[in-house]
Amino acid sequence: MARPIDPTDLTADLIRCRSVTPREGGALGLLEAALTAAGFECHRADRGEVSNLFARWGARGHPKSFGFNGHTDVVPAGDTAAWTSDPFGGAVCDGWLWGRGATDMKSGVAAFVAAATAFVTETPPDGAVVLAITGDEEGDAVDGTAAILDWMADEGEHMSVCLVGEPTSRETLGDMMKIGRRGSMTAYFAAHGVQGHSAYPHRAHNPIPALARLVERLSAYRLDEGSQHFDPSTLAVTTFDTGNPANNVIPGLCHATVNIRFNEAHSSDSLSDWLRAEAARVTEETGTTIEMEVKVSGESFLTPPGPLSALVASAVEAETGQRPEISTSGGTSDARFVKDHCPVVEFGLVGKTMHQVDERVEVAQIEALTGIYRRILAGYFNGSAALSG
Amino acid sequence: MARPIDPTDLTADLIRCRSVTPREGGALGLLEAALTAAGFECHRADRGEVSNLFARWGARGHPKSFGFNGHTDVVPAGDTAAWTSDPFGGAVCDGWLWGRGATDMKSGVAAFVAAATAFVTETPPDGAVVLAITGDEEGDAVDGTAAILDWMADEGEHMSVCLVGEPTSRETLGDMMKIGRRGSMTAYFAAHGVQGHSAYPHRAHNPIPALARLVERLSAYRLDEGSQHFDPSTLAVTTFDTGNPANNVIPGLCHATVNIRFNEAHSSDSLSDWLRAEAARVTEETGTTIEMEVKVSGESFLTPPGPLSALVASAVEAETGQRPEISTSGGTSDARFVKDHCPVVEFGLVGKTMHQVDERVEVAQIEALTGIYRRILAGYFNGSAALSG
Repeated sequence: MARPIDPTDLTADLIRCRSVTPREGGALGLLEAALTAAGFECHRADRGEVSNLFARWGARGHPKSFGFNGHTDVVPAGDTAAWTSDPFGGAVCDGWLWGRGATDMKSGVAAFVAAATAFVTETPPDGAVVLAITGDEEGDAVDGTAAILDWMADEGEHMSVCLVGEPTSRETLGDMMKIGRRGSMTAYFAAHGVQGHSAYPHRAHNPIPALARLVERLSAYRLDEGSQHFDPSTLAVTTFDTGNPANNVIPGLCHATVNIRFNEAHSSDSLSDWLRAEAARVTEETGTTIEMEVKVSGESFLTPPGPLSALVASAVEAETGQRPEISTSGGTSDARFVKDHCPVVEFGLVGKTMHQVDERVEVAQIEALTGIYRRILAGYFNGSAALSG
Repeated sequence: MARPIDPTDLTADLIRCRSVTPREGGALGLLEAALTAAGFECHRADRGEVSNLFARWGARGHPKSFGFNGHTDVVPAGDTAAWTSDPFGGAVCDGWLWGRGATDMKSGVAAFVAAATAFVTETPPDGAVVLAITGDEEGDAVDGTAAILDWMADEGEHMSVCLVGEPTSRETLGDMMKIGRRGSMTAYFAAHGVQGHSAYPHRAHNPIPALARLVERLSAYRLDEGSQHFDPSTLAVTTFDTGNPANNVIPGLCHATVNIRFNEAHSSDSLSDWLRAEAARVTEETGTTIEMEVKVSGESFLTPPGPLSALVASAVEAETGQRPEISTSGGTSDARFVKDHCPVVEFGLVGKTMHQVDERVEVAQIEALTGIYRRILAGYFNGSAALSG
């Protein structure tokens, strides 16, 4: 029987792996060895340049399978000289562990690996524990968690519910969990006119006023007032460019970009239809042709409050004394892929220093998080039947 | 007594001088020699890197001084390989003279030099003929005709009236002359906001919608309906840029440029005041600070129809059989400097091929233009007294 995994030591070891997206950096190999030693069956679900790790304890496709999802890749350290401590050193000082990935999210991965291995070793459940750990969450993410889920479907692997271990706490550990996210999409507009000399605007067709009218109108529009679980949807014009070097030339073409974060009142399709109609209205008013292309980063999603969120909230409260606020704020996470397969919630550390110089985490917080994940597993397998697959 | 100057030969010789702005290329030296031989007193009114030639026949400061203004500098030839004939070869083929400057405006300079030298030689007038020829009209023009006029003022030199020999004819020689030009100014706007993540627009301040509102409003405004001698004033938004590479970032700053061509209903000051007020209105509505800088290329000006334009029109009609339309259309010319000193009109060749590959002029047109300039001189010195200084 393997020695219990210390989540702080494992986090420090992971920090020492230089797994800047898309480099594996030894991080997944380290986890694979530890999990194999604890009786997990491991498979690499690599795709393209990306390394991914799938691990399961218990029977394949078991109807009561608890899943954890996370990532070992990290964003670059930036200016290494600006760090107080080596970003890939994993040093512990005065109760804090320093380094890139200390909060986002090598600590979260180490915590659920430590919790899962201890749980199945000490109280083997009637069910399965599944870990889906990717090396590509900070990058394009197309060959990351999505690739593991594809592989799982092909292999008959299953998760009944899933917890994503991203940092979700705001000020103190346990003050917030997430049950969904807004969707995100970007529309690229190109307005076409006819180039000409600025002294003779009637011989040219200036596309700028039409595009200006469109983006000003879109900016002024209030998409919705928010809903029970979501903030209001937002729209931001992020670019407007002509790239015209000559101020005596009316350009023949200009571009603008609009980014929308939307709640469940919309879909990328309904918003695309609206944007296309607004562009067509401006075309009708001005005679300026406006083309649009759309890139969808993710639809909005929600796991409505229910047994899974109640289980997580109870475990958090038992460990920390505070009941987490249920939220859908923030940018995208890999929960957007998981939600197509099973109920999914996110809970993890305070993310304040993530992506920053001097990213760090309190050692006591890693231990508390491990305790919470352990309580969640116990509650899932030994608690009420509401969450059974 | 010097041999009469052939205006076509002189144009060809000037084309062979590679006088691309600001290079003199030997062009002014050539003219200086020819004019000196014909009894003109020549001075170089060079300033900065620019060469300029002043020439006078007759007494300095004579109250009946007829002036010609023109330039020997040319725009670059562009893709030389695309030319049918060497752009600096000055070849004559089938009655056409080819080369950069053939219409704009080495031919015009050659025509008034040939006309002036022949006129003073054959029928010496009681008065003076003054030539102000610059090597910097196509460039910044700050050290060109303006420098000659400054030098003339310092030296007690005088022009009672002035004809600028720029190409003004549209389809056939003599169909148009110019008695003024619209003014030109450019306003540079910078809208200042606060950069931020596009997922949280309420934490940022996006400057794009405010600037879009401003330029759309300015574009929709009708400045005036034109006047007896002027086309309507025009406004063109020529640039709008954020230079933002990231579509998930709301930029903190964006820029736009507006070019205005204006008639005598406005001045650059009155328009600057209006633009500033419109920017302030948008700032008040949106909270977005918008800064503005203005660059004035020239105010509008007009030499109202009178004895000078009548003299030119009669000479054109006598030579070509058609009376020229009186116009104020087109971009800027050095007449904008001359108009502060004396009545000024512009008349010259058809400008269709100017600034293009295969710029060329019919030899017969150079001869006809020389005949027109000669008739103008005769009419000025021997005709009615209305134009006496």
